[in-house]
Amino acid sequence: MAVDVVRVALVGQGYVATIFAWGLCKLKKGEIEPWGVPLADVDFGVPVEDLEIAGSVDVDERKVGKSLREVAPMYGLSPEPELGEVVVAPGLKLRSTPGFIRTKALDDSKPLADAYGAFEEWLDDVKPDVVVDVTSTVASSPLYSWREVEEKAYRGDLPHSQVYAFLVLRHGRSSYVNLQPAYVACSPAFVEKARENGLLVLGDDGATGATPLTVDLAEHLKERNRRVLSIAQFNIGGNTDFLALTEPERNLAKENTKSGFLKDILGYEPPHFIRPTGYLEPLGDKKFVSMHVQWVSFGGFTDELVVNMRINDSPALAGYIVDLARLAYALAKAGLRGTVPEVNRFYMKRPGPLDARHTSKIQAYREMLGLLEEKLGARLRAKPLSA
Amino acid sequence: MAVDVVRVALVGQGYVATIFAWGLCKLKKGEIEPWGVPLADVDFGVPVEDLEIAGSVDVDERKVGKSLREVAPMYGLSPEPELGEVVVAPGLKLRSTPGFIRTKALDDSKPLADAYGAFEEWLDDVKPDVVVDVTSTVASSPLYSWREVEEKAYRGDLPHSQVYAFLVLRHGRSSYVNLQPAYVACSPAFVEKARENGLLVLGDDGATGATPLTVDLAEHLKERNRRVLSIAQFNIGGNTDFLALTEPERNLAKENTKSGFLKDILGYEPPHFIRPTGYLEPLGDKKFVSMHVQWVSFGGFTDELVVNMRINDSPALAGYIVDLARLAYALAKAGLRGTVPEVNRFYMKRPGPLDARHTSKIQAYREMLGLLEEKLGARLRAKPLSA
Amino acid sequence: MAVDVVRVALVGQGYVATIFAWGLCKLKKGEIEPWGVPLADVDFGVPVEDLEIAGSVDVDERKVGKSLREVAPMYGLSPEPELGEVVVAPGLKLRSTPGFIRTKALDDSKPLADAYGAFEEWLDDVKPDVVVDVTSTVASSPLYSWREVEEKAYRGDLPHSQVYAFLVLRHGRSSYVNLQPAYVACSPAFVEKARENGLLVLGDDGATGATPLTVDLAEHLKERNRRVLSIAQFNIGGNTDFLALTEPERNLAKENTKSGFLKDILGYEPPHFIRPTGYLEPLGDKKFVSMHVQWVSFGGFTDELVVNMRINDSPALAGYIVDLARLAYALAKAGLRGTVPEVNRFYMKRPGPLDARHTSKIQAYREMLGLLEEKLGARLRAKPLSA
Amino acid sequence: MAVDVVRVALVGQGYVATIFAWGLCKLKKGEIEPWGVPLADVDFGVPVEDLEIAGSVDVDERKVGKSLREVAPMYGLSPEPELGEVVVAPGLKLRSTPGFIRTKALDDSKPLADAYGAFEEWLDDVKPDVVVDVTSTVASSPLYSWREVEEKAYRGDLPHSQVYAFLVLRHGRSSYVNLQPAYVACSPAFVEKARENGLLVLGDDGATGATPLTVDLAEHLKERNRRVLSIAQFNIGGNTDFLALTEPERNLAKENTKSGFLKDILGYEPPHFIRPTGYLEPLGDKKFVSMHVQWVSFGGFTDELVVNMRINDSPALAGYIVDLARLAYALAKAGLRGTVPEVNRFYMKRPGPLDARHTSKIQAYREMLGLLEEKLGARLRAKPLSA
Ligand SMILES: NC(=O)c1ccc[n+]([C@@H]2O[C@H](COP(=O)([O-])OP(=O)(O)OC[C@H]3O[C@@H](n4cnc5c(N)ncnc54)[C@H](O)[C@@H]3O)[C@@H](O)[C@H]2O)c1
Ligand SMILES: NC(=O)c1ccc[n+]([C@@H]2O[C@H](COP(=O)([O-])OP(=O)(O)OC[C@H]3O[C@@H](n4cnc5c(N)ncnc54)[C@H](O)[C@@H]3O)[C@@H](O)[C@H]2O)c1
Ligand SMILES: NC(=O)c1ccc[n+]([C@@H]2O[C@H](COP(=O)([O-])OP(=O)(O)OC[C@H]3O[C@@H](n4cnc5c(N)ncnc54)[C@H](O)[C@@H]3O)[C@@H](O)[C@H]2O)c1
Ligand SMILES: NC(=O)c1ccc[n+]([C@@H]2O[C@H](COP(=O)([O-])OP(=O)(O)OC[C@H]3O[C@@H](n4cnc5c(N)ncnc54)[C@H](O)[C@@H]3O)[C@@H](O)[C@H]2O)c1
Ligand SMILES: [Mg+2]
Ligand SMILES: [Mg+2]
Ligand SMILES: [Mg+2]
Ligand SMILES: [Mg+2]
Repeated sequence: MAVDVVRVALVGQGYVATIFAWGLCKLKKGEIEPWGVPLADVDFGVPVEDLEIAGSVDVDERKVGKSLREVAPMYGLSPEPELGEVVVAPGLKLRSTPGFIRTKALDDSKPLADAYGAFEEWLDDVKPDVVVDVTSTVASSPLYSWREVEEKAYRGDLPHSQVYAFLVLRHGRSSYVNLQPAYVACSPAFVEKARENGLLVLGDDGATGATPLTVDLAEHLKERNRRVLSIAQFNIGGNTDFLALTEPERNLAKENTKSGFLKDILGYEPPHFIRPTGYLEPLGDKKFVSMHVQWVSFGGFTDELVVNMRINDSPALAGYIVDLARLAYALAKAGLRGTVPEVNRFYMKRPGPLDARHTSKIQAYREMLGLLEEKLGARLRAKPLSA
Repeated sequence: MAVDVVRVALVGQGYVATIFAWGLCKLKKGEIEPWGVPLADVDFGVPVEDLEIAGSVDVDERKVGKSLREVAPMYGLSPEPELGEVVVAPGLKLRSTPGFIRTKALDDSKPLADAYGAFEEWLDDVKPDVVVDVTSTVASSPLYSWREVEEKAYRGDLPHSQVYAFLVLRHGRSSYVNLQPAYVACSPAFVEKARENGLLVLGDDGATGATPLTVDLAEHLKERNRRVLSIAQFNIGGNTDFLALTEPERNLAKENTKSGFLKDILGYEPPHFIRPTGYLEPLGDKKFVSMHVQWVSFGGFTDELVVNMRINDSPALAGYIVDLARLAYALAKAGLRGTVPEVNRFYMKRPGPLDARHTSKIQAYREMLGLLEEKLGARLRAKPLSA
Repeated sequence: MAVDVVRVALVGQGYVATIFAWGLCKLKKGEIEPWGVPLADVDFGVPVEDLEIAGSVDVDERKVGKSLREVAPMYGLSPEPELGEVVVAPGLKLRSTPGFIRTKALDDSKPLADAYGAFEEWLDDVKPDVVVDVTSTVASSPLYSWREVEEKAYRGDLPHSQVYAFLVLRHGRSSYVNLQPAYVACSPAFVEKARENGLLVLGDDGATGATPLTVDLAEHLKERNRRVLSIAQFNIGGNTDFLALTEPERNLAKENTKSGFLKDILGYEPPHFIRPTGYLEPLGDKKFVSMHVQWVSFGGFTDELVVNMRINDSPALAGYIVDLARLAYALAKAGLRGTVPEVNRFYMKRPGPLDARHTSKIQAYREMLGLLEEKLGARLRAKPLSA
Repeated sequence: MAVDVVRVALVGQGYVATIFAWGLCKLKKGEIEPWGVPLADVDFGVPVEDLEIAGSVDVDERKVGKSLREVAPMYGLSPEPELGEVVVAPGLKLRSTPGFIRTKALDDSKPLADAYGAFEEWLDDVKPDVVVDVTSTVASSPLYSWREVEEKAYRGDLPHSQVYAFLVLRHGRSSYVNLQPAYVACSPAFVEKARENGLLVLGDDGATGATPLTVDLAEHLKERNRRVLSIAQFNIGGNTDFLALTEPERNLAKENTKSGFLKDILGYEPPHFIRPTGYLEPLGDKKFVSMHVQWVSFGGFTDELVVNMRINDSPALAGYIVDLARLAYALAKAGLRGTVPEVNRFYMKRPGPLDARHTSKIQAYREMLGLLEEKLGARLRAKPLSA
């Protein structure tokens, strides 16, 4: 049945990318169930089996030159033989790569223009249908015009994520999924360029853990007209993503995508403190989240809610990539261009395009299914979606 | 502007009913905000100001004969003068009233038939548009035919809630809102009788605390295809509602309405232990809820979530009554008959009619708004609903 | 260095006993650290290496006749070769064995007196220095005289735990450690008999999880003169210990040992609801505990504390057995007779003898160390204890 | 019975000092119970009734010149008439007063030497037996010699807390209780000067909330030889104490006193993240604390504990002051000089003198009672302490 092949390139071969590659491999061999893949039961024309990892990029000297089979055990995962076919190529470190990474990068010694050229050669080689950015979090600003993008890129003033988006979209043959907090699907310049080239940019910042739950919780409270007095939320973890967030400007970038929804959902912005807060190595990838919410109920009484979670951070996003790579491909093929807010609103913390309204995730899910039904004839495995 | 008056009769003048009466009084005087009233910002033609408490019934000898102004301080509420106009009339105790209540009831000495007649006289007198049942939880079974209802009612084999529904619907001039776990909106016999008489029955069991949150949480997990391994949920409180639930069969009645949604939302029924568990007097009406959920994420990793709440139990339901009394009135006036699943699915733990499918509460809210827009021309205070 | 051998017999080869046997084996081989063994760093003359499992008894037909090497994998544990030497012998089921166990027991067909005789032959054979009861929880009452014990034992009116204690103490060559809620160290008749025979009885009901933590928490609050308003505590698990507790009278037996300390520690008994509450299979041996405590602070303000735990139930008690078997042996050898409240107060939920006062566990620990120093010349690995 | 009067001066008339003054007033009138006063039931010769507030100092222009009766309502407390007798005098702002306070201070315009002189006149006037520092948190370093103290004080290089300690101890007639994180009882120079002058310095940083609980929890785990893998602790509140902690160096000062005990209690320092983390105004003085601890149990299994609290921050410390003012007075009178580690270890986060070992709080309490019994003949209200 699977006639297509969707070629996926991973930029940032870290925890998320590696669990994705490993899990995809196990899924295709039927060794695991597709838990954590939101659309596993929805048939929209691109089965999971069609996905193929075509290439990988990183700048960590311990990974560059290694195959994914060698990378998997760094994350406690079994070295599946099929992973041996993909080797990590060197990427662009720029000034935004975290300082704790010893790099082996295209721009280690070459001038920027040459390094960019080398990256384009890699694109020529790998021919990805979809490029997925799961590099370390960076701080950034929205980019409004392509000229601005070009100038800043060559001056070295863009963080790596925006440079990758620039090079991939200029190259013009791959759609782009940005899963980190950089402004990519929320940069009008990138969305416009994708539109021109008949491509899609999805993003920004995958919504996997406490944030989307808080969105739905906020909607739940709003629908009962309960007045939220305050929200405190702490996240602490022991993976390198949290380590990178110990740098204040990265932390702030994350903080922004974590609390942007409040006004849209509630209609007002309650006092809040919502943050990834710290790095604690023994927690590993299973972060600890604690949240306190209080609100006013009928008659002026105050209720309180505390949520505590232990969440495997990276698998949650890896499961989304199984969908997002397929959706970017299928929707572009179906003629959509630029970006797809119906998809972003479900999967992302700061759904593109810039200033797209947030809705509850539960509502976003329904609206996305509607779009998939309309554009791709999507249906539940056994029965029509609308049933 | 308020041209109508909606006459509401309260059956069971306990914590919920008293906070409702007191809060309504404060709302009408503009002394509190309508927090906790879900549709406070939706204009569907019946403003809160139209509500009027026309009568009240109880069987507790400490309340019968007292005005609501005298009852309010029993719950720590201020004795608003306007509450002086409503006096608690004696109701029907039957065999289902909790044993810890010393009763003063119509059937204390009279034969049942006479007691029922006396209750109908009270209905003639009070002329309610809507009767709201917030009596103590009872165990019951669905009733399928009116003949069965009549026979059992006269044999004394029905719990009080079903007897009240029987008498009110036979009387034929009031819609009925059942907020406790008894099978009323989930008894085909009552819904059918309401339909014949051009009335509505809404119910059963208000969904105010952990249950509706768990419904939305389950939907949240389902949409991400996370496999729920188990759910444990404890509720403990210090009000007489929890005291009544220390009787095993009442507890079971509640347990059933608390976990009925799992199959519908998740598509399978995960192992669960979901219960009101105990009575602990110092907690008062602010119950403590603890919930543990674990699920499988992508790649086979197990995540965990713990929710702890302190929730003011009775205000939450009181806020719903402000909507439900208005909706029962408005929708019946607009020509709906029998019951309204779109309303029940949002407000109720076991939405009528019998075997109505559960949906997420967030989705139910949207569907209810759609119905209100269509049938009642509802709009947000300032703008059309669909905006 | 280890000159002695302490022969330990296990009665009830369930989760606790099996983790104990497996862990002891791994400890002796130096393959695990002695985490969870309270006195691992205290040298009181009997090193862990001296412990030897001499025998095992159960009534579950799936275990009787199997070696511990075959039993270990039933609990997900590796089949260590050394465990092959101990084979599970049939015990006495009486009327107290949980109904969900299909039994193979000495009293399956034999009259009681014969079955008791057979058990004594097993004792002759195994020659334990210490017998440890980790059978399923039973309900029981304190026994005051030996005559009462004998009469009831032969009439079949004692639960299995008290029968085992009766037979072992009458046999007169083994000390006895009772880790389940039955009244054994809290039965004056057993303590008296042990005293006569120069033996020790330690018990009752190991204090491993939320209970000892709550004891220390209560002491913590008491020392600050904070007034406890209420305590709610739920325990839910998926092992057969929790399954057995779904029978109300067993649950009550456990509930009693779980809340007995309040009056002794606080000086008053605050309203409380402290219970093992339910069985939920997917939780396995890692139980979920939720606790809510509220108190009055200076000036009349109310504080709240919520504790949530995921605790591996059986390993915690298994670690205690490593100490208790050694202590029972060493203290008896040092001339102590009857029971040792200083030991019981630290390790047990209802420390014997009957009506022994509870103290905080932290204080009990100090007092136990004092006793060990005095009676056994105990010292920390490197330095005197009192340092 | 109360023959003495203990004159207490408060430095920093904030939340803690005001609840203390108000609560003491209510206690003396018998209008509240002494909950939250640790030694309320211990008679050591100075009953609560002997305490008298002799003076108060602050630098907030909204308080200076006002009576405590006018200050109480700023914290939602009733304006007890007796509080009218104490008027807030201006203190020394130096460079350490938080920037968000608009000050009215002795050193607003005067040179430092003159301002110090003015403060000493105030001491002459007020004649306190005990001075209590509850000013805003400051960062500081230990001071080793009196000469160093003097030089830095006159150069303006000491934070206000160390300047107050300098002036009070030089003045030589009052003992000193430091309840904030500044190095005072942990500055050898101050302890030495107190010793010379026959006075006491108690401190530093009151241990009221999560910290002392964590100390006892750590001891609890240590005694069972459970290996702590990690501890994460967040504190967030809405009082000005938390507002002051948003300045990084103050936050760090607090962080240090919050985690200093780990090594002493556990014998090793597990990875930890223990912090006051943020300011969230609607939480008010009732802070939210969340803590995650994980450890290894017997056999290598990992357990987890989560603690969530809502704690009234300031009342907890206010209750301690009722003891500490009396103890400083009584113990100095009984001939103790310098500092009293037995007292500090129970009440303080970083018990003086510098590098005093931490013990569990439960143990510290016993040791303190022993000292009080020995030096002051202390006894429980009704019976000897040792009973
Ligand atoms: N649930 C989730 O894990 C989740 C959710 C939302 C967003 N994200 C985002 O996904 C991203 C990846 O998360 P992770 O857990 O895999 O982090 P990670 O630290 O494990 O992986 C990041 C990888 O990016 C590489 N990298 C850094 N700079 C690079 C550069 N200039 N070029 C190429 N590679 C570079 C690093 O070497 C590393 O291998 C993060 O930005 C994170 O914020 C993750
Ligand atoms: N959030 C909520 O509080 C909530 C949510 C869902 C459902 N409910 C249901 O609402 C009902 C009321 O809750 P509550 O907190 O007010 O309880 P409550 O115990 O305070 O009040 C119940 C009242 O019913 C009266 N009553 C008992 N038997 C009666 C009879 N035969 N006839 C007339 N009156 C009778 C009692 O005297 C009492 O005044 C309960 O059944 C409860 O299960 C409450
Ligand atoms: N942390 C803890 O696990 C903990 C703490 C305190 C007390 N306890 C007590 O320890 C005991 C054992 O706990 P567990 O988790 O091992 O339970 P378990 O159910 O795994 O094991 C109990 C074993 O006893 C056997 N048994 C039942 N009746 C018997 C009889 N008449 N004679 C001989 N064997 C019999 C069963 O077949 C089973 O193998 C329980 O009573 C429990 O209450 C456990
Ligand atoms: N449970 C507790 O509340 C607790 C526990 C341990 C330590 N503490 C410490 O107690 C202190 C007081 O806490 P709070 O909650 O009352 O804080 P607060 O902010 O309410 O009060 C501090 C007061 O100090 C005053 N102040 C600031 N600089 C001053 C100066 N130079 N001279 C005189 N006064 C000055 C402020 O104006 C304010 O009135 C803090 O340092 C806090 O860290 C409090
Ligand atoms: Mg991550
Ligand atoms: Mg209720
Ligand atoms: Mg157990
Ligand atoms: Mg404070």
